[in-house]
Amino acid sequence: MESSAGPAPTPRALPYYVALSQLLGLTVVAMTGAWLGLYRGGIAWESALQFNVHPLCMVIGLIFLQGDALLVYRVFRKEAKRTTKILHGLLHVFAVVIALVGLVAVFDYHKKKGYADLYSLHSWCGVLVFALYFVQWLVGFSFFLFPGASFSLRSRYRPQHIFFGAAIFLLSVGTALLGLKEALLFKLGAKYSESEPEGILANVLGLLLVCFGATVLYILAQADWKRPPQAEEQALSMDFKTLTEGDSPGSQ
Amino acid sequence: MESSAGPAPTPRALPYYVALSQLLGLTVVAMTGAWLGLYRGGIAWESALQFNVHPLCMVIGLIFLQGDALLVYRVFRKEAKRTTKILHGLLHVFAVVIALVGLVAVFDYHKKKGYADLYSLHSWCGVLVFALYFVQWLVGFSFFLFPGASFSLRSRYRPQHIFFGAAIFLLSVGTALLGLKEALLFKLGAKYSESEPEGILANVLGLLLVCFGATVLYILAQADWKRPPQAEEQALSMDFKTLTEGDSPGSQ
Repeated sequence: MESSAGPAPTPRALPYYVALSQLLGLTVVAMTGAWLGLYRGGIAWESALQFNVHPLCMVIGLIFLQGDALLVYRVFRKEAKRTTKILHGLLHVFAVVIALVGLVAVFDYHKKKGYADLYSLHSWCGVLVFALYFVQWLVGFSFFLFPGASFSLRSRYRPQHIFFGAAIFLLSVGTALLGLKEALLFKLGAKYSESEPEGILANVLGLLLVCFGATVLYILAQADWKRPPQAEEQALSMDFKTLTEGDSPGSQ
Repeated sequence: MESSAGPAPTPRALPYYVALSQLLGLTVVAMTGAWLGLYRGGIAWESALQFNVHPLCMVIGLIFLQGDALLVYRVFRKEAKRTTKILHGLLHVFAVVIALVGLVAVFDYHKKKGYADLYSLHSWCGVLVFALYFVQWLVGFSFFLFPGASFSLRSRYRPQHIFFGAAIFLLSVGTALLGLKEALLFKLGAKYSESEPEGILANVLGLLLVCFGATVLYILAQADWKRPPQAEEQALSMDFKTLTEGDSPGSQ
């Protein structure tokens, strides 16, 4: 079944879920700031406070901005495809740049303190996230923003791009939870079990991270919340359908 | 577009991905056993070894068996729908029963040692997993195994059931990673940063948990790997389509 032509209305529930995701995302960023301010002495590039730049940048870049980049096609439903693509790419660039600042902060801090690098599960997952993010950006850029790739190639790659985008985002959320846990256990140790206020705050922050990840995933998973094709894309897609209909009648 | 009638062939790549998921799942279970055997003194219901029952049961129940329960509809493509449903439900029952043994083990161990319960992010996420799993089982059972629910109600609930099933599974994987990290930091402490063999083994186990979760999610996310409707279901679905076509022409 083709969806009927003309401007498709925005699904009724979508704006509420997007609003919820933004509320959760901003709360997570604010709460990370509050945690670092209240219990870790705040943020600075010099001194021991340099470490604190790491969690804040990672939460802003790899959680909030990365999550929002995934939602761009659900939120901007009527703008030109190219504009939406550029916004999607730009948000990912901002996400990576801020995350790189966070990465430099922690490596620099480790170096000054003489701590070892890359020994923990948190750091291994983080390296995996960065490697996958880099590959995804490179492949996504060459398929969707370069004019070279054919329509058929793009159509076949699109579901893979969406799956890996969601998977990298979820792995980022998981890595953040591991990092939070590490920061708590290193500092609180056995006091964590005495329900210290810092422990409670950080646990709530962890659950909110989970809720933000789940809300973004829920919005992405609703098939009928996808961005409807614009007039010019629809014409192209029809041509393509007519051409390929013969060899795969059952596929959608 | 309707898929053409007759037995649809199994997608070519699907068996390889299912085989990979099983290889990863079994490796994760074996490696958890190896970790507990080599570095934690093995497993017993009495003494300090009782704690070790917890990670093993959780990995078998809430990771391996829960993951496999989600794959049942992708693997058993030609069996009667009812048989497949019962297998899906049974695997989830086994998963929960084994997980409950793991839960009793850790609470009992904490009680004997006088340790506090439910203070960590790992335990909070675990409670959330159990609560969601319980609700999902209850709602799934009443919609899909009880004869009462109408075809239309089932069709509308199905995508929600699949989404929350996948989300609970992913949260289980995340909770396992947090638990693993906790177990490492409590025992190894600062020695974790000296790349102890136990730390390396547990980090690899963590990455394999991530890979198992990603593979199961990948199999679930491929729209054309879904189980094709059987002859009798297709007839029903056609009737339903004819009845409802009028009021939602654009929806799939």
